[in-house]
Amino acid sequence: MSRKVVCGLSGGMDSTTVLSLLIDKSYDVHTFSFTYGSKHNQYENDAAKKVAKYFNVPNTLVDLSDVFKNFDSALLKTGGEIPEGHYEAENMSSTVVPMRNSIFLVYMAGMAEKIGADAVALGVHQGDHHIYPDCRKEYIKAADSFIYMATEMKVEVITPVLDLDKGSMIPLGIDCDAPYNLTRTCYKQQEISCGRCGSCVERIEGFQNNKLIDPIEYETVPDWTGCVSINHFINNS
Amino acid sequence: MSRKVVCGLSGGMDSTTVLSLLIDKSYDVHTFSFTYGSKHNQYENDAAKKVAKYFNVPNTLVDLSDVFKNFDSALLKTGGEIPEGHYEAENMSSTVVPMRNSIFLVYMAGMAEKIGADAVALGVHQGDHHIYPDCRKEYIKAADSFIYMATEMKVEVITPVLDLDKGSMIPLGIDCDAPYNLTRTCYKQQEISCGRCGSCVERIEGFQNNKLIDPIEYETVPDWTGCVSINHFINNS
Repeated sequence: MSRKVVCGLSGGMDSTTVLSLLIDKSYDVHTFSFTYGSKHNQYENDAAKKVAKYFNVPNTLVDLSDVFKNFDSALLKTGGEIPEGHYEAENMSSTVVPMRNSIFLVYMAGMAEKIGADAVALGVHQGDHHIYPDCRKEYIKAADSFIYMATEMKVEVITPVLDLDKGSMIPLGIDCDAPYNLTRTCYKQQEISCGRCGSCVERIEGFQNNKLIDPIEYETVPDWTGCVSINHFINNS
Repeated sequence: MSRKVVCGLSGGMDSTTVLSLLIDKSYDVHTFSFTYGSKHNQYENDAAKKVAKYFNVPNTLVDLSDVFKNFDSALLKTGGEIPEGHYEAENMSSTVVPMRNSIFLVYMAGMAEKIGADAVALGVHQGDHHIYPDCRKEYIKAADSFIYMATEMKVEVITPVLDLDKGSMIPLGIDCDAPYNLTRTCYKQQEISCGRCGSCVERIEGFQNNKLIDPIEYETVPDWTGCVSINHFINNS
């Protein structure tokens, strides 16, 4: 019997890469996605559903918007405008949703216990650490101890791309058949990805660093000079 | 300016004792109570409201029943019968709600960050450790590290009664004016406390060990032979 694992699936590249790595190991994966009142939530969840379907794994959508309605963040519908520009800029800190990943993690650990999975997999990676405290390695180490204790040593936290950045996870994902064409990264409340918010900028840089053209469409078309297309994904879209 | 602290207030004796200790230190306390779908939830929340009013501190009731509806436990309305008898008995383990305290804690840590509090206080104590993993000391230590990291070292977890059992916290609470007459401990879905469930049995033993009569009413009247009344609380009811 293969190892049973719960995987948080936002519909973005990071969690999609993690899912592809778990599937590649033949794990029995159950994915969870969350509604939490963010502006791009609907697009993310649609993407997560498509990615889960692509890999033929269950995807449970959990509505936690009530939990988050008292928290302040530009990322939420109740918050201000999403800033544009590079992630590291000071203004991007307004997109921090306090405790978001922690609440998702704790929920998924409870579900892991319930369905007999022994791990919760998260797509946290090193590229995130500048502004999001719950994406840092020290946070993940503490989270792992916490979840392990909370579940009577039945569930651990695994983060297969923790030491990577967006650029370095792309080749790994491609090796494991990750359908990046189905993913959603943009923070804006619009169907087409803007190509200007911190989240888009980081994703585009990841592809540029690999000399690859991102298979999704952008409102502001990035500079793909010197990059090649990923035919594999285009054929699967 | 006094230290600002968030305190989980279930309406039971443990969290009421913690609140009384924090008030005694002149902390600026904001209490949170939760609706999570338990059978005794309404009675607990009513008690929490009365206790907060007694100390004249804010009490925010947060509805997380949607979060818990997928979890299984006899404690929840969606679960089976509440077992009777002593807490340590095997059957009481059906009242474990997976990750309950963890979800409350993470939520309160987010709120603490929002209102500028530097700690979340919990009424966890040693009497709980046999069946509830999230009431154990090793869990609390891991939780403290986790919350500290998740909040960028802004919020810690404090547990003023962690090393005590129910019996030994009663004298401390009495010294700090804890209104035990307003508290609710019983797990049953009924106005009057049963006096038979594990939660009631433990509470009654705590008072008996102190040779004190519990100021609340019970359906099955406990043996108060050799115990004296706590006139202070009776006068305040």
